Amino acid sequence: MQDTIRAVQWDGEVLRLLDQRLLPHEETYIQYHDADAVATAIKDMVVRGAPAIGITAAYGIVLAAKRHYQATPKDWKTRLETDLQVLAQARPTAVNLFWAIDRMRQVIEQDNSDAIAALTNEAIRIHEEDIQANKTMGAYGAELIEGGSGVLTHCNTGSLATGGYGTALGVIRSAYAADKLKAVYADETRPWLQGARLTAWELVKDQIPVTLIVEGAASHLMKSGKVAWVIVGSDRIAANGDVANKIGTYQLAVSAKYHGVKFMVVAPTSTVDMNIARGNDIPIETRSSEEVLTAANQRIAAQGADAWNPAFDVTPAELVDAIITEKGVVMAPNKDKMLAMMKTS
Amino acid sequence: MQDTIRAVQWDGEVLRLLDQRLLPHEETYIQYHDADAVATAIKDMVVRGAPAIGITAAYGIVLAAKRHYQATPKDWKTRLETDLQVLAQARPTAVNLFWAIDRMRQVIEQDNSDAIAALTNEAIRIHEEDIQANKTMGAYGAELIEGGSGVLTHCNTGSLATGGYGTALGVIRSAYAADKLKAVYADETRPWLQGARLTAWELVKDQIPVTLIVEGAASHLMKSGKVAWVIVGSDRIAANGDVANKIGTYQLAVSAKYHGVKFMVVAPTSTVDMNIARGNDIPIETRSSEEVLTAANQRIAAQGADAWNPAFDVTPAELVDAIITEKGVVMAPNKDKMLAMMKTS
Repeated sequence: MQDTIRAVQWDGEVLRLLDQRLLPHEETYIQYHDADAVATAIKDMVVRGAPAIGITAAYGIVLAAKRHYQATPKDWKTRLETDLQVLAQARPTAVNLFWAIDRMRQVIEQDNSDAIAALTNEAIRIHEEDIQANKTMGAYGAELIEGGSGVLTHCNTGSLATGGYGTALGVIRSAYAADKLKAVYADETRPWLQGARLTAWELVKDQIPVTLIVEGAASHLMKSGKVAWVIVGSDRIAANGDVANKIGTYQLAVSAKYHGVKFMVVAPTSTVDMNIARGNDIPIETRSSEEVLTAANQRIAAQGADAWNPAFDVTPAELVDAIITEKGVVMAPNKDKMLAMMKTS
Repeated sequence: MQDTIRAVQWDGEVLRLLDQRLLPHEETYIQYHDADAVATAIKDMVVRGAPAIGITAAYGIVLAAKRHYQATPKDWKTRLETDLQVLAQARPTAVNLFWAIDRMRQVIEQDNSDAIAALTNEAIRIHEEDIQANKTMGAYGAELIEGGSGVLTHCNTGSLATGGYGTALGVIRSAYAADKLKAVYADETRPWLQGARLTAWELVKDQIPVTLIVEGAASHLMKSGKVAWVIVGSDRIAANGDVANKIGTYQLAVSAKYHGVKFMVVAPTSTVDMNIARGNDIPIETRSSEEVLTAANQRIAAQGADAWNPAFDVTPAELVDAIITEKGVVMAPNKDKMLAMMKTS
């Protein structure tokens, strides 16, 4: 199956990020040498997608650690703390960011003979584990899909949003490779147009046919009977199975329920936050109203108009048919089932 | 109450249309002298909105009739038939277009001593009746809204979409004038961005505060409890109360039902098509995929991506709480209630 894209690249010295703000028009990689610039890249959405943000932050910590270790080998750990905090503040909703920082922090706290090598190895491990998790989830998710199905996805959850292969888009890759998909629909996902700009680019590049729709057409599409599953990723899953994801996800879940279309959430366990009881407790990032007042970098709304731009919403567990992690499939998720899944080794 | 905009203007000789493709950046009126150009203006969406299309077609017929009458006074009616058909084919979904052509056709078929004056008067009457109907509907609709409510509207249903004042936006104008509205939310309405480009412009111009959202945020907004009513227009209402309207309307109705938010449709009786039994029989215009693959005239999607662009969808009557026409209010619409309302004099 086609899987040619890697948006987060580490060459041993430098972090390279595919600038997702410029897609699909330009394929430009930016090089990063320090953690501040990496944090800004996360905030400005050079890189986005919960798993990709976590991996990027891990490499950002490697860059910062190297720099501090060379400059002040005796108190590099103290100086590094500032970088960890700057990175943690880059985006509030995706828990993978905090999860990756925590994993790196555990290595920092160890007494390694070669701390930089240990941190580098940990970042690479986080990255490789993510790709492996995506392939595992791809297989689990594809199993749930009947042959000849149409599917609808939201935002971008592919190689661009992860270490590679993708979460929801990984399931679509696997199902397409298994010749199960009759049609892949992607909604454009305003305001940032991840669906139109990123998912369509990624699927075209990997030769999986894709049909874009505006978000307003999703219910009309579901009514037509052309989609059996809505498949999405997540930025944070609460202990009870409530799902925070890109704005517009909740609306698809409401509509899927009404139409008897099934709703699948695909995310690695690094996205599950067992410390948050319910979705309503997940902090939702509100981004600049400018993102709504513009499209494709052009002003679209009249001067004087206001806008409200929540970047995420919460889908309650009762609207979710299946949560797929690398540890398995949770059907009709609830607190007990999520806990059991997380405890699986 | 503020009501300053007229997008369709007739000066006795020439038809002037505000070019809605250029809003909100440029306020340009185009002059029309013949029916072919008017039909193209409707097709290309220089003018849009079901009532405005009907009014525009009526003036287009006046222009054509004058021209034919001057050129060939003996068989002007025969020649005019071609123009009627070209105008009727400009857009398939809005029934107001056919309704206005039928009204003009009745005058054509009369044996008037001054046929051109009679046609001109009929077009002006269609226009003025529309404005009056909108003000009547504004009052009816505003009565249903409790003080302190938030409302959400879709597409543009204002002065730009009608002879003036608006249908759904007319209700919002009236409710705002009655100091009943805590907040007016407008979704941007992809792909053509009528909400962002037109509704926001119109409300800012008439000093009614407006907050834009992306369509994906509508359900998240409803869940927050900030809106009591979704208020929309229509392009055609079937005999049973099913409502064809701009793509995205159906999704709002599904979500409104789920959240206990009420759903109001505002349209003059010229929008009601008692010859169509059910919404599924209404022809739905599919427009160019280019509208989805671009935003603000910029390409947004990767080359090679396909798109599906239905311009309208159908909301079944059971998701509609109230249909407002100039003849009155139909709560929980069905065939019998619609018939009774239409028979009201």
